Amino acid sequence: MSAAVQTAVVGVRGYAGMELARLLLGHPRLGEATPVFAGREPGTLAGMHPRLHPVLGGESPEVEVFSWELLERRGVEVLFLATPHEQSRAWAPAALDRGIRVIDLSGAWRLRALENRAVYKFDDEGSPAAIATAERAVYGMSELHRDEIAAADLVANPGCYATSVILALKPLLAAGLIDREQGIVCDSKSGVSGAGREPTATTHFMNAADNLSAYGLFKHRHMGELLEQLDVADEEIIFTPHLLPIPRGILSTIYVRFAQKTTAEEIEACFEHFYAGRAMVRLFHGGELPQIAYVVRTNFCDIGFKLAPDGRRCVIVSCLDNLLKGAASQAVQNMNLMLGWDEAEGLL
Amino acid sequence: MSAAVQTAVVGVRGYAGMELARLLLGHPRLGEATPVFAGREPGTLAGMHPRLHPVLGGESPEVEVFSWELLERRGVEVLFLATPHEQSRAWAPAALDRGIRVIDLSGAWRLRALENRAVYKFDDEGSPAAIATAERAVYGMSELHRDEIAAADLVANPGCYATSVILALKPLLAAGLIDREQGIVCDSKSGVSGAGREPTATTHFMNAADNLSAYGLFKHRHMGELLEQLDVADEEIIFTPHLLPIPRGILSTIYVRFAQKTTAEEIEACFEHFYAGRAMVRLFHGGELPQIAYVVRTNFCDIGFKLAPDGRRCVIVSCLDNLLKGAASQAVQNMNLMLGWDEAEGLL
Amino acid sequence: MSAAVQTAVVGVRGYAGMELARLLLGHPRLGEATPVFAGREPGTLAGMHPRLHPVLGGESPEVEVFSWELLERRGVEVLFLATPHEQSRAWAPAALDRGIRVIDLSGAWRLRALENRAVYKFDDEGSPAAIATAERAVYGMSELHRDEIAAADLVANPGCYATSVILALKPLLAAGLIDREQGIVCDSKSGVSGAGREPTATTHFMNAADNLSAYGLFKHRHMGELLEQLDVADEEIIFTPHLLPIPRGILSTIYVRFAQKTTAEEIEACFEHFYAGRAMVRLFHGGELPQIAYVVRTNFCDIGFKLAPDGRRCVIVSCLDNLLKGAASQAVQNMNLMLGWDEAEGLL
Amino acid sequence: MSAAVQTAVVGVRGYAGMELARLLLGHPRLGEATPVFAGREPGTLAGMHPRLHPVLGGESPEVEVFSWELLERRGVEVLFLATPHEQSRAWAPAALDRGIRVIDLSGAWRLRALENRAVYKFDDEGSPAAIATAERAVYGMSELHRDEIAAADLVANPGCYATSVILALKPLLAAGLIDREQGIVCDSKSGVSGAGREPTATTHFMNAADNLSAYGLFKHRHMGELLEQLDVADEEIIFTPHLLPIPRGILSTIYVRFAQKTTAEEIEACFEHFYAGRAMVRLFHGGELPQIAYVVRTNFCDIGFKLAPDGRRCVIVSCLDNLLKGAASQAVQNMNLMLGWDEAEGLL
Repeated sequence: MSAAVQTAVVGVRGYAGMELARLLLGHPRLGEATPVFAGREPGTLAGMHPRLHPVLGGESPEVEVFSWELLERRGVEVLFLATPHEQSRAWAPAALDRGIRVIDLSGAWRLRALENRAVYKFDDEGSPAAIATAERAVYGMSELHRDEIAAADLVANPGCYATSVILALKPLLAAGLIDREQGIVCDSKSGVSGAGREPTATTHFMNAADNLSAYGLFKHRHMGELLEQLDVADEEIIFTPHLLPIPRGILSTIYVRFAQKTTAEEIEACFEHFYAGRAMVRLFHGGELPQIAYVVRTNFCDIGFKLAPDGRRCVIVSCLDNLLKGAASQAVQNMNLMLGWDEAEGLL
Repeated sequence: MSAAVQTAVVGVRGYAGMELARLLLGHPRLGEATPVFAGREPGTLAGMHPRLHPVLGGESPEVEVFSWELLERRGVEVLFLATPHEQSRAWAPAALDRGIRVIDLSGAWRLRALENRAVYKFDDEGSPAAIATAERAVYGMSELHRDEIAAADLVANPGCYATSVILALKPLLAAGLIDREQGIVCDSKSGVSGAGREPTATTHFMNAADNLSAYGLFKHRHMGELLEQLDVADEEIIFTPHLLPIPRGILSTIYVRFAQKTTAEEIEACFEHFYAGRAMVRLFHGGELPQIAYVVRTNFCDIGFKLAPDGRRCVIVSCLDNLLKGAASQAVQNMNLMLGWDEAEGLL
Repeated sequence: MSAAVQTAVVGVRGYAGMELARLLLGHPRLGEATPVFAGREPGTLAGMHPRLHPVLGGESPEVEVFSWELLERRGVEVLFLATPHEQSRAWAPAALDRGIRVIDLSGAWRLRALENRAVYKFDDEGSPAAIATAERAVYGMSELHRDEIAAADLVANPGCYATSVILALKPLLAAGLIDREQGIVCDSKSGVSGAGREPTATTHFMNAADNLSAYGLFKHRHMGELLEQLDVADEEIIFTPHLLPIPRGILSTIYVRFAQKTTAEEIEACFEHFYAGRAMVRLFHGGELPQIAYVVRTNFCDIGFKLAPDGRRCVIVSCLDNLLKGAASQAVQNMNLMLGWDEAEGLL
Repeated sequence: MSAAVQTAVVGVRGYAGMELARLLLGHPRLGEATPVFAGREPGTLAGMHPRLHPVLGGESPEVEVFSWELLERRGVEVLFLATPHEQSRAWAPAALDRGIRVIDLSGAWRLRALENRAVYKFDDEGSPAAIATAERAVYGMSELHRDEIAAADLVANPGCYATSVILALKPLLAAGLIDREQGIVCDSKSGVSGAGREPTATTHFMNAADNLSAYGLFKHRHMGELLEQLDVADEEIIFTPHLLPIPRGILSTIYVRFAQKTTAEEIEACFEHFYAGRAMVRLFHGGELPQIAYVVRTNFCDIGFKLAPDGRRCVIVSCLDNLLKGAASQAVQNMNLMLGWDEAEGLL
């Protein structure tokens, strides 16, 4: 497959869009074809994101007003939607109709079960177009669905919290080690960029600084992803997000009980086997644990664990940068697979 | 004068209003008469300011919708306006007409000279009512204007930056020590609360955290206060504010040159003399300098200095909490004087 | 009992010692008798803690070199030990021998069971003096042991993490609501002051800022307090501390399962009943949750909870200031009880 | 010149050493020859700097115990000293004796005048070896001394503060625009990494967070560099450093007066001319000002300015990352010139 693939990012004004732009501009196999950057208002990338100055150098790519005509004129083959849920519900099917492959970073197409999607209150729920589109969507976690992603036209990029939890739990659940009936507890903490670029009371420095708060208990949007991707029942898992006074990064502390007495070696082996050859997950050994500082501004998900002396209870710690492995770099990973490239291309 | 003075605060939703409410509720001579709290929307103080929980205890005072009828019904004698400039321009004369004394925390009535006020672009500039009101207004810095404040009906509470700079410079300028023609440089740094409660791009955690930026060069609104209160010409003084990644506090680093070779003892004596008996200014000695951490959540302005070996150049460092000595506690200090009490009542 | 009780604080150089000094200096019933402040090196309180400037005003109390002779000469009746564990092991019995009542803020006397104390590796473990002293020690959580504290000569002030967890769990466990066999998960997060004043790699700004890390899994010193005070078995509870990039404050997110389907009203009633008349615990209602910002620089422990729709799973969130309710103000609460005063005296 | 140049870094445990290691490992022309990393104690780069994980990937280079034998065995041609001043005073001449070219990041060899060096109190001051070495040293600011650096055996890498001030002032001073007698004020603010890796009271999170403090007034070590490189007299310039509560980054706000009325265009032209073709300095236009966030983790120095309406007073704002353009990347820039490469090689 030729490298001259034309990509486009809609919604570059947000933080995920910004990181996506940065990654695509530096992608070794897209070098010749500058991505199309589009949004509601025209401008330049550097104007919208002064912190991209260093990446962009002297000249900044234009951000154009989004239109289908624009995408057609520029011959866009892969479209990244870094747009609100509602917009992605409308634009993903429209792009597919035009033969454009889509990687959607919103929650619009991540969930299969109607009851899990209820939290989003989609306007078009139940319409034939929405049903047909949902059936084409593949959950874009390459460590779980590599082959489906490679063949997909529509990839639903996972939520940031969901990524940190699913990558930590999937190997152990798939191996049947965890006793689900004893319950799984996922205590996650995220930096402020997870709340988006829009200035709100929550993202105001005065509320976030020197503080920590829990929110969205028993009803956070990412719960549905955990249920579907981990194949656990609602009563088997609790997920509590917290807002950290830092710009970026997620740390999830996850508590499980094993059905049988287990050794640290067995658990390490389970993780090693599951992530063999997967470049974007880094495993910590010997009870060493990842920290947010190790993953910020990287494209990795770091995973470590500590087993209780009883061999039954285990705490898994999982860290990632919510804007990268939790959003933009995972989207690029998906693009790489869709285009037949190595999943880590442009990410190491 | 009896202690049963009825006060009111309009604009309690903002940070200065919050601190004002806290100080008035704890004021030993207002204890019997709970202040009236008012704003655009009804609610409770604790509802608007969850961080006031500890102060308020179990029951929170109501915040009522502002109306003149409300103030009259409650017999308000002293009105604090923690409102935007435009509103204070309209409400201060209206209160005075009703015989209510006013302490205005906005910039509406601080400036005497038309050219200094130009930056505010007041709608009513030049109207007879505005001119008459302006003439009654006293600049509310008690260390400079104690007697006028005591007699005033309308006190214009100083700006936070202006307070930190004026208190540091006035003693030396009044004593004729400073050579103004050599220029005075005021490099000030403020925490994010100075930018107000409204969520904006500036106050977004992502912009403020891990950052420092200069802004408003040669045109900040507080410049006029420096010119008028210090009696210096525009070309003799430069003031540059910066946004610090902390919730609250201002530190001003001020550079002056003396007309004559001077000793540290002479400068200390000058400050000691000027602030003798003034409880809300704390002087540092022996070249020791204040830090923001020493003044945050206090009602003081801390001042220290360091003289160059040449005895001619001097750096003065001045610190205060922008919401307290830079706003709310200075307003209470003014109220104390207006009611014939000790200026530090309720502030130590 | 007369108010002229002479107190002393040994170890005022640390953060807990600093807060203790501040609280005792402002205590309404100790006003006449300035506490004795002592440590390894002489100095002044303001010299050791520049941030106490505002509290201390112009003149700062002396910090004297500790000696028993000093305590005797000053007639000390109540001694606060804000000292390292080893020192408290030696000094508490020595003070008791001299008829001085002791409130020890270290971990020296908190634990009853030898296996729980093992983590401290006390030198004198098993000596007759240590055994006798341990038997006199009362765990200083007034909400659990008011009467014993009132009568005690030696009060072991609880650990900061332990306080936040025990206060959140005790009412529900005492009422038999929690199914312990399903496991209790305590995910706690603390500000940096919890790591003490000594500069270390951990407390270095570069390691703490913009970061979050878990530590001490399955082996933190405060585990023993949870086991003993909550009367749960080691395999029934997990406790994981994390280091937050903020100066102070602890938030514990605690996950439990109820033996029976329960309503939010029943849980609220359980908490209300347990903490009826206890001023230093504040309960949140209607699913509202406390945040660290609400408790920092207060003497309260705030508790809220959220019940899952299934009525079986519950998340309790508990917040306190680790230096106050987690240390110094809890110590003052204990002193109040020991002296026959209201437990909240000087703390509201 | 061949690319197989063998380099070594002594002192990789510090922050500048860490960044230097990162930059050299990623340098496109050093790729074949892994640098030698040495220090007082053996270990691995990743062990000393867990945050380098992402850069290092799976395998981490060894850090070896420094010895001359080690350097000789590995055929080191260029030696970076990221060592304390005293050590650099001893090792730089020793390396030169062995024919190894040296880039020293300490203050050991930056200053020419004895009175400027006095602040360092060097043990060997006045010894023939020290005098001879000092004469060979070139001040390593490539924007000022490109040719001398290219030919040098010993390059003294500039101080971080000094770099931010000198790059901002040199073009205007060289053009004779500034009236030095009116005085130049340099108000600089630096993140905590500038204070080094050693845990101290200053770098303790509790002292740095939520704070700002000025220090080293009239006596900071970098003053000498300003005097010598800018060719100004001590009474013509004031430099005040401040400690910012952020991990990294310096912003200097610099106040000058021009001898003649000047236009913004003339000043822009002056900067443009001076920095024509210099990749590591980025100029801001139209009164736009740099911020710390734009330069953190970049190798650039950003410069902007604002001219007063009177055309005589000007504020220049200069930003850089103290560990990069203020230390490690400037050192690599020097190495590039010494090896005949483009100065920006490996830095864009």
